[in-house]
Amino acid sequence: MQYTNNKVSDVKIAYVGGGSRGWAWKLMSDLAAIDDVSGHVDLYDIDYEAAQHNEIIGNKYGSAPTAKSKWTYTAKKTLEEAVEGANFVIISILPGTFKEMESDVHAPEKYGIYQSVGDTAGPGGIVRALRTIPMMEVIAKAVEKCAPNAWVINYTNPMALCVKALYDTFPKIKAFGCCHEVFGTQNFIARILRENCGIAVSDRSDIKTNVVGVNHFTWVTSATYRDVDIFPIYKEFAEKNKDCGVPLRHPESYFEYKEKVKMDLFLRYGAIAAAGDRHLAEFCPGSWYLDNPEQVEEWGFKLTPVSWRYVDLEDRLEKSRRLRNGEEEVRVEKSGEEGADLIRALLGLCNIVTNVNLPNRGQIPNLPLGAVVETNASFRDNSVVPVVAGNVPEGVYHLVAGSVDEQLTVARAAKERNLELAFKAFCKDPLVRLDIKTARKLFDEMIENTKEYLKEYFK
Amino acid sequence: MQYTNNKVSDVKIAYVGGGSRGWAWKLMSDLAAIDDVSGHVDLYDIDYEAAQHNEIIGNKYGSAPTAKSKWTYTAKKTLEEAVEGANFVIISILPGTFKEMESDVHAPEKYGIYQSVGDTAGPGGIVRALRTIPMMEVIAKAVEKCAPNAWVINYTNPMALCVKALYDTFPKIKAFGCCHEVFGTQNFIARILRENCGIAVSDRSDIKTNVVGVNHFTWVTSATYRDVDIFPIYKEFAEKNKDCGVPLRHPESYFEYKEKVKMDLFLRYGAIAAAGDRHLAEFCPGSWYLDNPEQVEEWGFKLTPVSWRYVDLEDRLEKSRRLRNGEEEVRVEKSGEEGADLIRALLGLCNIVTNVNLPNRGQIPNLPLGAVVETNASFRDNSVVPVVAGNVPEGVYHLVAGSVDEQLTVARAAKERNLELAFKAFCKDPLVRLDIKTARKLFDEMIENTKEYLKEYFK
Amino acid sequence: MQYTNNKVSDVKIAYVGGGSRGWAWKLMSDLAAIDDVSGHVDLYDIDYEAAQHNEIIGNKYGSAPTAKSKWTYTAKKTLEEAVEGANFVIISILPGTFKEMESDVHAPEKYGIYQSVGDTAGPGGIVRALRTIPMMEVIAKAVEKCAPNAWVINYTNPMALCVKALYDTFPKIKAFGCCHEVFGTQNFIARILRENCGIAVSDRSDIKTNVVGVNHFTWVTSATYRDVDIFPIYKEFAEKNKDCGVPLRHPESYFEYKEKVKMDLFLRYGAIAAAGDRHLAEFCPGSWYLDNPEQVEEWGFKLTPVSWRYVDLEDRLEKSRRLRNGEEEVRVEKSGEEGADLIRALLGLCNIVTNVNLPNRGQIPNLPLGAVVETNASFRDNSVVPVVAGNVPEGVYHLVAGSVDEQLTVARAAKERNLELAFKAFCKDPLVRLDIKTARKLFDEMIENTKEYLKEYFK
Amino acid sequence: MQYTNNKVSDVKIAYVGGGSRGWAWKLMSDLAAIDDVSGHVDLYDIDYEAAQHNEIIGNKYGSAPTAKSKWTYTAKKTLEEAVEGANFVIISILPGTFKEMESDVHAPEKYGIYQSVGDTAGPGGIVRALRTIPMMEVIAKAVEKCAPNAWVINYTNPMALCVKALYDTFPKIKAFGCCHEVFGTQNFIARILRENCGIAVSDRSDIKTNVVGVNHFTWVTSATYRDVDIFPIYKEFAEKNKDCGVPLRHPESYFEYKEKVKMDLFLRYGAIAAAGDRHLAEFCPGSWYLDNPEQVEEWGFKLTPVSWRYVDLEDRLEKSRRLRNGEEEVRVEKSGEEGADLIRALLGLCNIVTNVNLPNRGQIPNLPLGAVVETNASFRDNSVVPVVAGNVPEGVYHLVAGSVDEQLTVARAAKERNLELAFKAFCKDPLVRLDIKTARKLFDEMIENTKEYLKEYFK
Repeated sequence: MQYTNNKVSDVKIAYVGGGSRGWAWKLMSDLAAIDDVSGHVDLYDIDYEAAQHNEIIGNKYGSAPTAKSKWTYTAKKTLEEAVEGANFVIISILPGTFKEMESDVHAPEKYGIYQSVGDTAGPGGIVRALRTIPMMEVIAKAVEKCAPNAWVINYTNPMALCVKALYDTFPKIKAFGCCHEVFGTQNFIARILRENCGIAVSDRSDIKTNVVGVNHFTWVTSATYRDVDIFPIYKEFAEKNKDCGVPLRHPESYFEYKEKVKMDLFLRYGAIAAAGDRHLAEFCPGSWYLDNPEQVEEWGFKLTPVSWRYVDLEDRLEKSRRLRNGEEEVRVEKSGEEGADLIRALLGLCNIVTNVNLPNRGQIPNLPLGAVVETNASFRDNSVVPVVAGNVPEGVYHLVAGSVDEQLTVARAAKERNLELAFKAFCKDPLVRLDIKTARKLFDEMIENTKEYLKEYFK
Repeated sequence: MQYTNNKVSDVKIAYVGGGSRGWAWKLMSDLAAIDDVSGHVDLYDIDYEAAQHNEIIGNKYGSAPTAKSKWTYTAKKTLEEAVEGANFVIISILPGTFKEMESDVHAPEKYGIYQSVGDTAGPGGIVRALRTIPMMEVIAKAVEKCAPNAWVINYTNPMALCVKALYDTFPKIKAFGCCHEVFGTQNFIARILRENCGIAVSDRSDIKTNVVGVNHFTWVTSATYRDVDIFPIYKEFAEKNKDCGVPLRHPESYFEYKEKVKMDLFLRYGAIAAAGDRHLAEFCPGSWYLDNPEQVEEWGFKLTPVSWRYVDLEDRLEKSRRLRNGEEEVRVEKSGEEGADLIRALLGLCNIVTNVNLPNRGQIPNLPLGAVVETNASFRDNSVVPVVAGNVPEGVYHLVAGSVDEQLTVARAAKERNLELAFKAFCKDPLVRLDIKTARKLFDEMIENTKEYLKEYFK
Repeated sequence: MQYTNNKVSDVKIAYVGGGSRGWAWKLMSDLAAIDDVSGHVDLYDIDYEAAQHNEIIGNKYGSAPTAKSKWTYTAKKTLEEAVEGANFVIISILPGTFKEMESDVHAPEKYGIYQSVGDTAGPGGIVRALRTIPMMEVIAKAVEKCAPNAWVINYTNPMALCVKALYDTFPKIKAFGCCHEVFGTQNFIARILRENCGIAVSDRSDIKTNVVGVNHFTWVTSATYRDVDIFPIYKEFAEKNKDCGVPLRHPESYFEYKEKVKMDLFLRYGAIAAAGDRHLAEFCPGSWYLDNPEQVEEWGFKLTPVSWRYVDLEDRLEKSRRLRNGEEEVRVEKSGEEGADLIRALLGLCNIVTNVNLPNRGQIPNLPLGAVVETNASFRDNSVVPVVAGNVPEGVYHLVAGSVDEQLTVARAAKERNLELAFKAFCKDPLVRLDIKTARKLFDEMIENTKEYLKEYFK
Repeated sequence: MQYTNNKVSDVKIAYVGGGSRGWAWKLMSDLAAIDDVSGHVDLYDIDYEAAQHNEIIGNKYGSAPTAKSKWTYTAKKTLEEAVEGANFVIISILPGTFKEMESDVHAPEKYGIYQSVGDTAGPGGIVRALRTIPMMEVIAKAVEKCAPNAWVINYTNPMALCVKALYDTFPKIKAFGCCHEVFGTQNFIARILRENCGIAVSDRSDIKTNVVGVNHFTWVTSATYRDVDIFPIYKEFAEKNKDCGVPLRHPESYFEYKEKVKMDLFLRYGAIAAAGDRHLAEFCPGSWYLDNPEQVEEWGFKLTPVSWRYVDLEDRLEKSRRLRNGEEEVRVEKSGEEGADLIRALLGLCNIVTNVNLPNRGQIPNLPLGAVVETNASFRDNSVVPVVAGNVPEGVYHLVAGSVDEQLTVARAAKERNLELAFKAFCKDPLVRLDIKTARKLFDEMIENTKEYLKEYFK
């Protein structure tokens, strides 16, 4: 790469899932909004037309008058072409279609199993993993062949299992997984500081947290803002608001929640659960928050139906059309995601310590080595090193260790294309409170529903 | 101690809970049945009269014509008198009365929580631990003061928590916990070998097993008989018999079971669960085996009602009377328990490798250090050293790690006399499938029922 | 503390060893050179007059026209007064006088043991530790009593043993040790990049290194500058210059060296030894670099005689006089030390990842937990967390593990005021190549020479 | 295998190095002396004639009137033929000839490096390892191919490196290494008990020891005989006899020693060094016991010259001739080695806990996983499981960790046929107190001397 005056000018990025109408646009905007890195992005998507559409949109972002750097975009027909010679590979794919997601999320409902998201843990997360992991293997092999020194940033869920599959396939891969759920908790803390203590926090990243756990079920074991210890404040807030929760700004949104689950978990365990309530609930025994739709409502969050995703997709397709034909202008602005800044750090342009998903090599001593965990890590010149985040706290350890065990079994089941093994993980998931025969029935049904993407399991 | 011709003649044992009408008599018989150790046993019991009765019975055993060694027994009025100068301290106490046990086992039933035993895991096990641990602290302090070099053998449940309390109170204590549940599994394997392969195993201890886990939820990860690998045989047997189970010899007994739970767990995880089905079921999610009495019956085991224990006690009291007044002769014979042989090994008279409960110092690498776990250990001259038993297998790890986490929280809650902390463990026990408010109601009720033995928690 | 517009205005620092005429002046200058922290420094020194002198000099720095912040200084008569209520405690003391140091460094010479520094490892380092650790205990107790939440920054040698003593005495202390030796290696690398590759590195901290080891014997296992991997460049340089070394700029200085030891160690082990050659040599077997004065010269470094320190002290006393009476103006400038910036990071004003000495809690998996090791750590709001630096590389492990073992024994010997135990460490130090009787003679002599500061060992 | 009445009748053993005139005869005698195992032994040796001679001798042992079991012997021309279908493979080879051993032991002497044995540690041990490890690889591959389930018992030195090479080559190999050095220490303790306390120990194995370390440098951290704690007795003995040592029975023997090294090490570190003084000395800094022949003599042990081995060989060849032609009768008796009993334990005929060399999987927590270490292990039915022996004690840790580091480097150097890497280990061996150039000269000379057996390193 070319460094001139603390700027880098010829970075090559490969975007796998480059037809994306969400994450891809955010990245295009974030890249244009930074002033010290320029380069080229190759877009690969199994839907080539979607990638072509994004080539047009990307080039608009990359050459916008408000862009602070210069980026060009090209849609590529094959994964290998896109990855070839990349310095960074970004993975953000949809494994399967909404039809499969519909099965993941809703098929369990007639068995009394409700999932608020269904893409990480629970029966939906497991089945989604089964079809995603083989795709990750293909990507990891392409990286090994075409860009073995590239940094690989994954955004795809189930996060931990995707990152694990990358490392299992190509052990020397320089991959990590990014997720914004902890940011939301930092924002929540900032809100408490502002509303309850009159402290104005200018940026959520000024709330310093120590993070331990697995993606979407991370726990903050210490949090400070300057010389302020946040725990006593959080405790007081949680005790006061545990019943009513936090007022919603957009009560109709499927994605807002009253933070009641988060406060309940804090009062149980004394650590701050650091993900959206929709995710947190899915890692707990089914009877706690997801027993039935009424209980979910009582806890102040919502079950996101896949039907909503269909509607939302229509909006995005329409927006894509408008962006392409110029009816709508691209807006260069920071999205709040950290990907572009992490790229800057890995290029040596800044230092960042933030939370990230990596194989455990000691950062969480009481979780198994090799399992993918989420903690803070130091991003610098061509290096991501986790900090010694410490043990998962007693109490929560129960649930986190269980989730890690599920991760390991599902990873192996997918690697071996072994549905029997996957079922063993399935039937002890904390949401699957079924006897073994009924669990089997549900599992078989979910596999049948999504078999088009599970062909390798039936060879 | 006095060694003459490979015999030891002046061993001093303290028996805490020495009024016991079960374990105590077995030990009396076992001591009389060995030929190379003689000595004296001091009996201590909070029911002094019961200890006095056992003094009479013990002396009959110790001087029976069929006795191979010579033992004398004395009832002592205080714990310290009994423990003073002991070489071995045996602990086998009933923490509280059947009234408390009735609450432990049956109070949860009206909340849909069924327990087959209720003395180890589950809501009953937790509440029982709360009242037992302070008693263990008293005993550990007596050992520290009066016999700091004594070997301490615990038989009391909840085993893991009792042993942990001993070490937490007096870290240099030389304590371990003995349990016969693995022996039952060895017997079951011997039965399979005999009935299905025509192999006659003369003694269950000839089935060599590698044991990992926590008491009553131990797992055998390898098993051999001479050059025979038992796993493929066990697998074939389990697949064939998983639905019907093993025929019962005494269908009316509360303690027999069809081994269906054990076989189901094997087929799920590929390791042999090595405890009675009644115990195993209590460590699994409530929906699997203990959802309701019908499901329990279907799985071929039984819920032991405390009412049975009252009846049984009557029988034992009557037997005690008969033994004392000579209506019934004492019968010197080996009970099948290992305590007496372990004493011989610790005296240097033999070497034994068997399963035992000890704090983890690396014998199970993927469980936290300091938690009390069950593995094989080598018993020799004044030394008990666990073998490197290896990891809890993937899959089962979920459940075992959860149980260990519960152990650690309950241990701390009891040590700190902190009921709030105990409740945190309570509400995430896999049998307690209640929302937090209902869980609280049950917990409070159980505490109220047993408060006579929990006074220290209310100071 | 008071935060206004991203500035903090009322920080309280205690400086133990506040009469220092080296480190203290650097800190005064560094504090005055930062623009976002102001406050007060209490100076404590066993030489109260020296502290008074520094009060005058400090106040000159703190109110200099070129100062970017405002600092006041007061000499305190007792340690506790100085530490009371401090936010930061800085420790930079001389344990004993040059007379003791003379024994440390030169007494072994007549036994053929040469030391280039004699304050960390080797016979001198051990004896110095024996008199320093009791002083650290006193300081740690004062912190526990008067400022238990203060951050404690140690500059005193032997670094690892001083930090260990702080934690051993007050386990909840928030202490770490700072050392600039790694910076020197970063500068050396920058020089290689500039001279050999034409790459201009503007600041040594832009060379990103992964550090593992113990203080003064740290090893860099990866190093990059932007996208440049430094290892192949370093290797080529070392192979070319191993015999001649790097030309000296001030050949008369005792502190310059030709980097030949460093290059030799790289060629042996493939990792970059990251401390001055004078320090590195003292951790290796005596025959390698310190066999005799001729060998030392051949390797291009020098033995610093204590006589030089006497001369140097005269210069400093004279400078102190001039600064006090205004003959010489204080110069506010950055010293190159990081202490002031670390204070800023701990106040939440910036984020820093740099190398630091902390008890091992997993940052170096193949060294014992609890030993004080040097690795990178993330400094943020009220938190210092080491990164997972990885194992000490095979090969070097030999020497580093030996040094850690020596650390543990000396720490215990000092804690127990046990000279016999100290001797056990002494006689297996890699520089002490003596048979046990001769080693004893030397040890006794060194203890006798310094007994005034070892009185507690003779009670 | 065929089990009848607790006897096994058709065991197949492969003996690699089957022409041996020492270990092989001991095993023949031991096998004939046990009454519950019979079978067949295939002898393989690169000297086929030697194997043929041993076929004759073996069959004499196996059918002797005093033999308690029945064994037949056949010399095989190829390794694979011998190993095919074996239940046990015994490895006892001489890597190279006495000519190479002469270089190992004596070449360093002109550089002032004296070795008492020269087959394990030190320059001789390293060079011996370089030629032995490739041979072990060949054997491991034959086992993998022809008898993957066989138990492999190694007697060849350097023990740790041989066992490591077996596992490195065939990770699923069921191999361990046996050594009698700890037995000698048990005998020494028995002698102390008898002579100083009047306690008659009938068998050295009744002294129960906890063993940690590496082969030939093992340390006993606790030792008991029945209820007698041996440490205070040993301490008193060592303090009394440290200067004069133990009187020799055969002062002319190269293999006897006064136990002065052992007592000196005890007084330094408080743990009992458990190998012959000849071996122990080689793991310590050269200045301690092996500085020069006079110092060796002063410490009461001897340097075994290879010339003695030539003479000894003549005696053995003569004895072989006599045994074959019947001039001398075979004598069936127990040799004191444990191999035959370990075979019995692995067949399920007895249980044994004894010291053995195995890869570290947690038995010694403060040594690296995977390094071959020596601890006690439980031998039972088809299983060898190490006990949790605990940490190498502080103090000794220095030396043991250094030896393990050397092991790891030499293992890798041999695996990669990389002499440069081997030299890195060589020049930091505690006996090699040379500057790097002189060390290189010696290394090159030793390699040159033995190059006939190092051909693969020069490809």
